[in-house]
Amino acid sequence: MARVYNFSAGPATLPEAVLEKAKNELLDFKGTGMSVMEISHRSKEFTEVLERAEANLRILMSIPDHYKVLFLQGGASSQFAMVPMNLLTESKKADYINTGQWSKKAIAEGKRYGSVRVVASSEDRIFNYIPEIRKDMFDPDADYVHITTNNTIYGTTFPEIPDTGKVPLVADMSSNILGQEYDVNKFGLIYAGAQKNIGPAGLAVIIIREDLVGRAMDFTPTMFNYQTHVDHGSRFNTPPCFAIYMAGLVFEWLVNLGGIKVIEKINREKSSILYDFLDKSGLFKATVKGRERSIMNVPFILPNDDLNEKFIKEATENGLKTLKGHRTVGGMRASIYNAMPKEGVVTLVEFMKKFELAHV
Amino acid sequence: MARVYNFSAGPATLPEAVLEKAKNELLDFKGTGMSVMEISHRSKEFTEVLERAEANLRILMSIPDHYKVLFLQGGASSQFAMVPMNLLTESKKADYINTGQWSKKAIAEGKRYGSVRVVASSEDRIFNYIPEIRKDMFDPDADYVHITTNNTIYGTTFPEIPDTGKVPLVADMSSNILGQEYDVNKFGLIYAGAQKNIGPAGLAVIIIREDLVGRAMDFTPTMFNYQTHVDHGSRFNTPPCFAIYMAGLVFEWLVNLGGIKVIEKINREKSSILYDFLDKSGLFKATVKGRERSIMNVPFILPNDDLNEKFIKEATENGLKTLKGHRTVGGMRASIYNAMPKEGVVTLVEFMKKFELAHV
Repeated sequence: MARVYNFSAGPATLPEAVLEKAKNELLDFKGTGMSVMEISHRSKEFTEVLERAEANLRILMSIPDHYKVLFLQGGASSQFAMVPMNLLTESKKADYINTGQWSKKAIAEGKRYGSVRVVASSEDRIFNYIPEIRKDMFDPDADYVHITTNNTIYGTTFPEIPDTGKVPLVADMSSNILGQEYDVNKFGLIYAGAQKNIGPAGLAVIIIREDLVGRAMDFTPTMFNYQTHVDHGSRFNTPPCFAIYMAGLVFEWLVNLGGIKVIEKINREKSSILYDFLDKSGLFKATVKGRERSIMNVPFILPNDDLNEKFIKEATENGLKTLKGHRTVGGMRASIYNAMPKEGVVTLVEFMKKFELAHV
Repeated sequence: MARVYNFSAGPATLPEAVLEKAKNELLDFKGTGMSVMEISHRSKEFTEVLERAEANLRILMSIPDHYKVLFLQGGASSQFAMVPMNLLTESKKADYINTGQWSKKAIAEGKRYGSVRVVASSEDRIFNYIPEIRKDMFDPDADYVHITTNNTIYGTTFPEIPDTGKVPLVADMSSNILGQEYDVNKFGLIYAGAQKNIGPAGLAVIIIREDLVGRAMDFTPTMFNYQTHVDHGSRFNTPPCFAIYMAGLVFEWLVNLGGIKVIEKINREKSSILYDFLDKSGLFKATVKGRERSIMNVPFILPNDDLNEKFIKEATENGLKTLKGHRTVGGMRASIYNAMPKEGVVTLVEFMKKFELAHV
């Protein structure tokens, strides 16, 4: 079958050029006569893959030198425990903002390791907004404040990064890392599962300020201690080599495109095409309003479930795939990460227009 | 460059047919118009990948129904902590056998969580043998006994699986799982990093007897609790989809080949070709003797380091790659896992013969 437009929330669409490159060298990586999956993680060739991936990520996000970059396994779900096990160790208090299902999971895991307080939540309206945040809400004595910058399921994003003063800000950036510009200096720790905007599943990227390394609880598994991986440059044990290689290709693709400033502009344009149509439509409706709309995940609904189902079915038949929304929101969700070309969004909106004409 | 013979200890060579299949469907998995890296881990298509991988592994290893199969992240190194965090919870005592560097790491991590006793060790002779094991060495009250079935660095294998009576036997099988037949019933838990005999790095396979699930320590991270992954069929969070897909292709390749009995015969033949030459050679020498020789990893040495270096250099130039031994053993090591064809070993031995003729 021809390539389709895949609006999956993750694992998600990858740049076609990246997949083509991986395909072309799958059995012979750079003239080694071996696949990149077959070479030692300590070889000269893989060392170059790893170092270049980190260097390009540092360029893309302007990561200062006093931040370490780690490529780990276990996804964001492992970070839900690693963050408290490594950081909830001085005052043993942390403040979390609850903006969705993933925040909730982070909170639940955090509570197992210390005193975790939810300082603001948008759960009262099925997380369709970002609660108001004021600096005085935070405990100045907390070990950290935790936020989820972009909420994949609900399609919301923090319009501004909260000012937490001297308290380190920890951010789960899984669904919008590299999709828009952030000042890394505002964060103590950033983590992201790869399978949305970075590469294939099975990899998590961690960006951690040096002074936050080396504070882990006694019973922290060696593999869950950031210090271990800082000390060994993400190669304490065999890393997920192929996923790192793929992430590296994605980083390179982004650098060649002009970096995050350029892709953010494209992402804003892509999401505007969709939101503008939704705001004008008499049939489709966006579930999130205003400045808190995500430019990565766009949930929308039709007046009833029969129509939602019909739309998803017909869209699928037309090569517009994985548009079903999360069960807690219903309807549809178009995830339009970096790798989704503008034509994908234009084609989707054209299809929505036709669908609307046929159903009013 | 043409494909070479890659003797890497891991990440290691993969069956060429598997790589070809992955390459052919890399941009369009089974007519979906998407890469297997781009489809949701909850999709019908990936569910089939996961279920088939497990079903084929169960066939290959004759895994009884009362054992659970898990596909996790974090490699064997994470298992070094997961095993004690999950199992060292009743008598809080465990017995370990120290047969190499990986055993040592498992022991060190185990000691952090309870009373760990080393009941036998081969460290006195740089791990070039397997210590004698008698059933009465084990504490009948221990929560488990831990062994490393095959020692990648030193090229040794347990000639028999120790009888631990009612105490569950836990085995790190990273470097010989699927390479020779084992009776799963003899084990309480088997774990293996994928990157030697299963597939690409970034995946660990765990086979655990049902009654050993659900005993974890209170502070065990949710992601480190076997119960979590048993409850969610390895999809509590996004699994390493591509690595599971690749492992599934390897399992299929093995099933089509005739299963473990057939590949073990081939492996014994391959390793005999190499050991027979080593035993007759006046120049090359195997570092391990007798029944404890691994059929997966074959370390060997030349009379001095200059010759070792010359050999490795010339072998590399002749398409026989990654033969350098581990620094603790020196010399060379040929890892000849399932995916190494017999011709690879024959070609290596031919080259060794020529090298010997030129240097005596």
